[in-house]
Amino acid sequence: MAQMVHGFGGGTADGDASMKDLLGGKGANLAEMARLGLPVPAGFTLTTEVCNHYSDEGRRPPALEGQVAAAITRVEGIMGGRFGDTEDPLLLSVRSGAPVSMPGMMDTVLNLGLNDEIVEGLARRTGDRRFAFDAYRRLLQMYGDVVLGISGGDPNPFEARLEAKKQDRGVQYDVELDAEALEELVGELKSLIEEATGEPFPQDPRQQLWGAIEAVFESWDTPRAVAYRKIHEIPSHWGTAANVQAMVFGNRGSRCATGVAFTRDPSNGERRFYGEYLVNAQGEDVVAGIRTPLPLNRASKAAGPADISMEEEFPEAYAELDRIRGLLEAHYKDMQDVEFTVQDERLWMLQTRSGKRTGPAAVRIAVDMLDEGLIEEKEALQRVEPEQLTQLLVPVFDRKGLEQAREDGRLLATGLAAGPGAATGVITFSADEAVACAAQGSKAILVRIETSPDDIQGMHAAEGILTSRGGMTSHAAVVARGMGKTCVAGCGALEIDYATGVMRVAGKVLQRGDAISLDGGTGEVFAGTQEVRESQILRVLQGELAEGESSIYGAFERLLTASDRHSRLGVRTNADTPHDARIARRLGARGIGLCRTEHMFFEGERITSVRKMILAKTEEGRKKALAELLPMQRRDFDGIFRAMDGLPVTIRTLDPPLHEFLPREAAEIAELAQQMGVSTEHLQSVVAALEESNPMLGHRGCRLGIAYPEITAMQARAIFEAAVQVAADGVDVLPEVMIPLVAYEAELEHQRRVVVDTAEAVFAEAGRRVDYLVGTMIELPRACLVAERIAAHADFFSFGTNDLTQTTLGLSRDDAGRFLPLYLERGIYDGDPFARLDRSGVGQLVVLGTQRGRLTKPDLKVGICGEHGGEPTSIAFCHGAGLDYVSCSPYRVPVARLAAAQAVLREG
Amino acid sequence: MAQMVHGFGGGTADGDASMKDLLGGKGANLAEMARLGLPVPAGFTLTTEVCNHYSDEGRRPPALEGQVAAAITRVEGIMGGRFGDTEDPLLLSVRSGAPVSMPGMMDTVLNLGLNDEIVEGLARRTGDRRFAFDAYRRLLQMYGDVVLGISGGDPNPFEARLEAKKQDRGVQYDVELDAEALEELVGELKSLIEEATGEPFPQDPRQQLWGAIEAVFESWDTPRAVAYRKIHEIPSHWGTAANVQAMVFGNRGSRCATGVAFTRDPSNGERRFYGEYLVNAQGEDVVAGIRTPLPLNRASKAAGPADISMEEEFPEAYAELDRIRGLLEAHYKDMQDVEFTVQDERLWMLQTRSGKRTGPAAVRIAVDMLDEGLIEEKEALQRVEPEQLTQLLVPVFDRKGLEQAREDGRLLATGLAAGPGAATGVITFSADEAVACAAQGSKAILVRIETSPDDIQGMHAAEGILTSRGGMTSHAAVVARGMGKTCVAGCGALEIDYATGVMRVAGKVLQRGDAISLDGGTGEVFAGTQEVRESQILRVLQGELAEGESSIYGAFERLLTASDRHSRLGVRTNADTPHDARIARRLGARGIGLCRTEHMFFEGERITSVRKMILAKTEEGRKKALAELLPMQRRDFDGIFRAMDGLPVTIRTLDPPLHEFLPREAAEIAELAQQMGVSTEHLQSVVAALEESNPMLGHRGCRLGIAYPEITAMQARAIFEAAVQVAADGVDVLPEVMIPLVAYEAELEHQRRVVVDTAEAVFAEAGRRVDYLVGTMIELPRACLVAERIAAHADFFSFGTNDLTQTTLGLSRDDAGRFLPLYLERGIYDGDPFARLDRSGVGQLVVLGTQRGRLTKPDLKVGICGEHGGEPTSIAFCHGAGLDYVSCSPYRVPVARLAAAQAVLREG
Repeated sequence: MAQMVHGFGGGTADGDASMKDLLGGKGANLAEMARLGLPVPAGFTLTTEVCNHYSDEGRRPPALEGQVAAAITRVEGIMGGRFGDTEDPLLLSVRSGAPVSMPGMMDTVLNLGLNDEIVEGLARRTGDRRFAFDAYRRLLQMYGDVVLGISGGDPNPFEARLEAKKQDRGVQYDVELDAEALEELVGELKSLIEEATGEPFPQDPRQQLWGAIEAVFESWDTPRAVAYRKIHEIPSHWGTAANVQAMVFGNRGSRCATGVAFTRDPSNGERRFYGEYLVNAQGEDVVAGIRTPLPLNRASKAAGPADISMEEEFPEAYAELDRIRGLLEAHYKDMQDVEFTVQDERLWMLQTRSGKRTGPAAVRIAVDMLDEGLIEEKEALQRVEPEQLTQLLVPVFDRKGLEQAREDGRLLATGLAAGPGAATGVITFSADEAVACAAQGSKAILVRIETSPDDIQGMHAAEGILTSRGGMTSHAAVVARGMGKTCVAGCGALEIDYATGVMRVAGKVLQRGDAISLDGGTGEVFAGTQEVRESQILRVLQGELAEGESSIYGAFERLLTASDRHSRLGVRTNADTPHDARIARRLGARGIGLCRTEHMFFEGERITSVRKMILAKTEEGRKKALAELLPMQRRDFDGIFRAMDGLPVTIRTLDPPLHEFLPREAAEIAELAQQMGVSTEHLQSVVAALEESNPMLGHRGCRLGIAYPEITAMQARAIFEAAVQVAADGVDVLPEVMIPLVAYEAELEHQRRVVVDTAEAVFAEAGRRVDYLVGTMIELPRACLVAERIAAHADFFSFGTNDLTQTTLGLSRDDAGRFLPLYLERGIYDGDPFARLDRSGVGQLVVLGTQRGRLTKPDLKVGICGEHGGEPTSIAFCHGAGLDYVSCSPYRVPVARLAAAQAVLREG
Repeated sequence: MAQMVHGFGGGTADGDASMKDLLGGKGANLAEMARLGLPVPAGFTLTTEVCNHYSDEGRRPPALEGQVAAAITRVEGIMGGRFGDTEDPLLLSVRSGAPVSMPGMMDTVLNLGLNDEIVEGLARRTGDRRFAFDAYRRLLQMYGDVVLGISGGDPNPFEARLEAKKQDRGVQYDVELDAEALEELVGELKSLIEEATGEPFPQDPRQQLWGAIEAVFESWDTPRAVAYRKIHEIPSHWGTAANVQAMVFGNRGSRCATGVAFTRDPSNGERRFYGEYLVNAQGEDVVAGIRTPLPLNRASKAAGPADISMEEEFPEAYAELDRIRGLLEAHYKDMQDVEFTVQDERLWMLQTRSGKRTGPAAVRIAVDMLDEGLIEEKEALQRVEPEQLTQLLVPVFDRKGLEQAREDGRLLATGLAAGPGAATGVITFSADEAVACAAQGSKAILVRIETSPDDIQGMHAAEGILTSRGGMTSHAAVVARGMGKTCVAGCGALEIDYATGVMRVAGKVLQRGDAISLDGGTGEVFAGTQEVRESQILRVLQGELAEGESSIYGAFERLLTASDRHSRLGVRTNADTPHDARIARRLGARGIGLCRTEHMFFEGERITSVRKMILAKTEEGRKKALAELLPMQRRDFDGIFRAMDGLPVTIRTLDPPLHEFLPREAAEIAELAQQMGVSTEHLQSVVAALEESNPMLGHRGCRLGIAYPEITAMQARAIFEAAVQVAADGVDVLPEVMIPLVAYEAELEHQRRVVVDTAEAVFAEAGRRVDYLVGTMIELPRACLVAERIAAHADFFSFGTNDLTQTTLGLSRDDAGRFLPLYLERGIYDGDPFARLDRSGVGQLVVLGTQRGRLTKPDLKVGICGEHGGEPTSIAFCHGAGLDYVSCSPYRVPVARLAAAQAVLREG
């Protein structure tokens, strides 16, 4: 750690953009810009190693002061003036800068080097007393907050004094305060500091500088920063750098300005220079929204023609900025987010970094830059976060409309953003109401305490689903995402009363039939209707819009086609209906990885047959009821097979416990009893007998098929009858029968025998065979541990990571909501384990299960069909674990395709 | 496989007792007895290899017929007569004999070699026509059943004809049928066979012989035998041997007899010759109980002085048998179970094997034989099945009384034998009723559909517990075994109606207050009272009986003291009260491995404070309620620490979800609301909010302690305040605080900090320290998989194999009852996984968790505290896995001590 300080400025630098680990992102880019000859105020960076030294030793390294003093001398040489000098003072800023961006964690102190004497010198030297005291009051504010830790209250005590002063002078904006007012304010802020700390504001510029530097380093170990790093898996030993830089002033009169700009439009990716600036202001004024900023150029002026753009007001500085824009894009080969200051018409660059962008913008920019020859295909594929693609598929609320709704006080509550998109409709409190509402052509929002499989029809019919209970992987959330429906789940602020048809929230009472709007992107719930914009991509896929009419479809399609060229993992979909299967196929799914048959059991009159089966006392009675179901199941599979012509379709045999198919409420039981022609007492006793303490660990999965082989046989018959039927029509059908919840090899052996015997019988009857596979879901820890035995009876494995997570962690996804937020906050879980695969625990079992399964069958096909199959980090894990495919809900197929490609590209 | 047939008889044999694998148990012992010069009818054994050849090839090996023919010739040479000869016929028997005993699986055919012609020859030769036809009708019966498979009905068709014939002749016993009647019966049985099979009974003796041999071999692969082997882990490739032996006849008149004898008393182990015999009968008549057998000797005559003992009736044969008794014990060095036949006053030995014995007998015999110098200590320790020791601790019903109850039709139903012993009392349908009943000095049986922690007081007060739902590890079963209470669980035949206070079973209606009796050894439920005998051992341990007054205490104590000399695994107990702790300590527990604190929360007024805590809306409110609990918890621990002076006490912090402490029924909620001074609606909403879909996987274990650290802190304070208090009184206290349900190292880190901080605070206040440990239960698969991380924060691990089994297998112990019987029957589970540790799955995790934990801490103390800690095969597994101790319920401590020793001895 010989060199602790790296200088930059004057057309050269001690570092460059590759040195982010040592200099932090901001410092490395300042050095890079200096090397490029861009107008960067001179300065120097204290390395991350210095930060670590502070953390470890609690004090600055011995040689540091000397190196800093030398660096300041160099800055003085380049920029003119002297730090601490009363006649020609140089002011400095200190900004933190970690190797990766940690938004909201960064500490900054500007205008260091002022004191009661120097401020007078600055006023004299610049001939601008107002500016000098504005700079001083800013220093006092930031130093007091960041270094001295005087905060609390909203606004904080410094802001409060500033506000009071503006009121006192009857002005609206800071900039309207004159020199005298600012001088008064400075006096008040100094008193505030002395009262709060018992010490006067330090008048020694060097003490100020070290105070700011050390505050930056200490900020690395605040609980907030530690928690943030834990969540984002940023190692603590990285440390942050501290950037000390000569101040340039955007607040020194009307020929000064400051602003931020993006080299392309961050909202839609268009190749236009986009930004905002403020005259006579310092950088934080733009971000803080103290005044409304002005547009950067004429092209951006549409909204407010009265505004004067920077292009008009500062034509030379703008031209220079525009030149630098091109230079930076060519150099960094990515859209840049820059901060700049204009001091007396002269442009200074304060920061450049890759700009944040929306999903559509990310796709557009990646594909455009590929076309422009700036980047190669592999690079383009890594420029889009897979998760961002979901933004291209969901309907969204108009942004202006949302702001208006918030202003109008129509934001009712915020729940979990559990299903994508935006939905507006009228409140319905039951599946039946939702269905009836939709049948009348109205848009319904299904509002439930929580949903159950009984509600499937209502969820289908509704525009969106709102629940007061349940987490990101509650029934409502999982099913909604599977359907691509908007869902806000676990919105605990709601009090729902089915009986009176009323929902209470935030002191308001909403009735059945009242309009509400759900934002699936934020989890916000609004009273009233909001204007919705439909996804272009889906309209193109559904033939409602020509490809050419969409601004984004072409880029989306090209990005995903490119993804498929690189990925090794296949992407399938979880789909239970021909409709879902078709959508998923259009979105690029190469087969169905999970077709749940139980949802089919709820539709229409089927549930009656299912209930007859459950109530039957004999195998004979069950077979009779199953015979009624057979043609309906066959029709389901027929449609799905046709939709997936040429692609494999994995069908899971019945999984949920039988009590899920029976009603629970006394009234419903009585009604059903009458319908079934049995006594209410009898039905009640059947329902009671089927009740389970822990249904998740109960009589379900293959345990049902073993107790009632006739159910498996009926399902297998429906599958194979449909298969030979569509095969006769020339469809290339590839059924894969999947047995759930296997823990013992004998279970799979038993169920496989039932399936194979049924298949052979159907083939013999039909005089036609089709190829098929029989495999199993691996969703219990024991199955992973004895995978080598289970593989002997399996043609494929598909990891059911939802249940595997529940059992490995001992965590019910329906109940986890109660402590999950606490666990995330404390960093015990580094993410919702149902959203993001727990690599350390569940991941070990996935690896083990795969390896052991392949010990027995080296070519065993292995996939994953839990919710994790659509989550990028989990997909990367599956790639690493050597799986063959992931399966996810239809609307996540594009995410998975891109993530699968990135997993390969990251291997290098 | 050159030698397929091994001969024996005439004072010599081709094999010996060591050749059980090849000759089966029966064949090897017949050979051994022949070598010893004992009077064994000559014969020969077809080896298990021949059986395997049959299984594999489906036909007899080519050279077999020649070897069998030669062996028959040898038998004819020794015994006289010729097989198939009409003038001097030799008859043969064929009996199966596997390497290990498979009771009820054995097939036997006697009297082979008779046909219509030979029977006349036999009648002539013996001058006893009645005998000849009795032998023929027996052949027809057994051959028809075993070889031709004519069965079905109860009695089977052959028995039915025999019964009809006896009715027809107006006689009671078979032996009263005369020659003419038997000749008629022979004709009828032959017709029956011809009708059933379409073929006449084979007249060729050789065809009969091969038919019988092949039936024996085929019996190895019947579904019943396959299932039995799977359950008992007997490899299929072992095969069974077939023993062909010359017939000797106990049914050839009044100077003939047959019997069974034990070289010592199998019910109490006394060194007296014990047995039964029948005059003029064949072996199966004794077993089948066709006539009441007579006592073997004068000493056994007490019961029926009118009977004539064998000692009196056949003095010479008896003297010979008594001589052989001594010879066999000296030779086999174990109590023998022999079968013999007396033919014309001459004694023949048909079988010898180690005799089955009760628990008390096993202990007595092992210790006696050690004293007699017959066996060494290590051998004595292996002569008792650990499980048998439980029989020495439980009260039992008088055997005669039980027989009477069955005859009187008072057997109501049979459930699972879930808790040991025998209990008689009056029916109570709630915990309160049971408590009230006990308070009035009456004995109560608590009858519930299922039990919950709410019922603990009632279970304590009751003599026994009867449930209609739940398996061997249901709440009722686990708690009952922990208390040493008699329990019959999952007795599905009961219909319990709390409302009307009525229990319906087997067409009977029993009211609240009616007497019933539960046999915890068999699961039988009887109407009315049964006489109970209390365990001598417990009376000695409780000081109610002097050691010398007990016939068994001395042997019991010596056996266990010897066990401790050999074992490496420590044995602790699961105990929640000073009373249980004291009993366990007297039974040899070397500490407490699991003290559950939640049971303490239900006692008396505590539940009120617990409920106040749950209903509190703030941490402040919770702390106030916890402060009320503190002195009570401290008293609990005080008592336990004193009882365990000098031994470690592992205390688990609160584990169950909070809703277990709240009532569920509307009426109870309303009552509690009034008591608590809150509205019923509020309490209902609290109860509803705490409801969980899968409580097993919900907000429980350390998740509670992390959400409410004040609960852990209160418990830690109670522990350490009690510890310093008893330490001040000179008690050597070793508290070990155990955190449940840890899956992530951060959970343990958090809870450990709370415990350590509390301990230090208490020590500072008290001015006294005690040594203590903080560890964790390993009961989730993830904990095993990341054990190396968790170990960093743990002083010890204790595997909670109940929950580990539930999660690894995805199997709720409360719900498994629904399909467990089916799974056991089909051999999918090779035992109830909650009773017997699943080695392949759960066992892997135990091994992994232990190894990984010790990677971090080589000396990490590791134990097990699930129900498996008291089950012998699981204890052997724990020994092999390198655990330090097992912990089990008090009454299983002796079982565990012996099993721990046997685990070492089996290593050789």
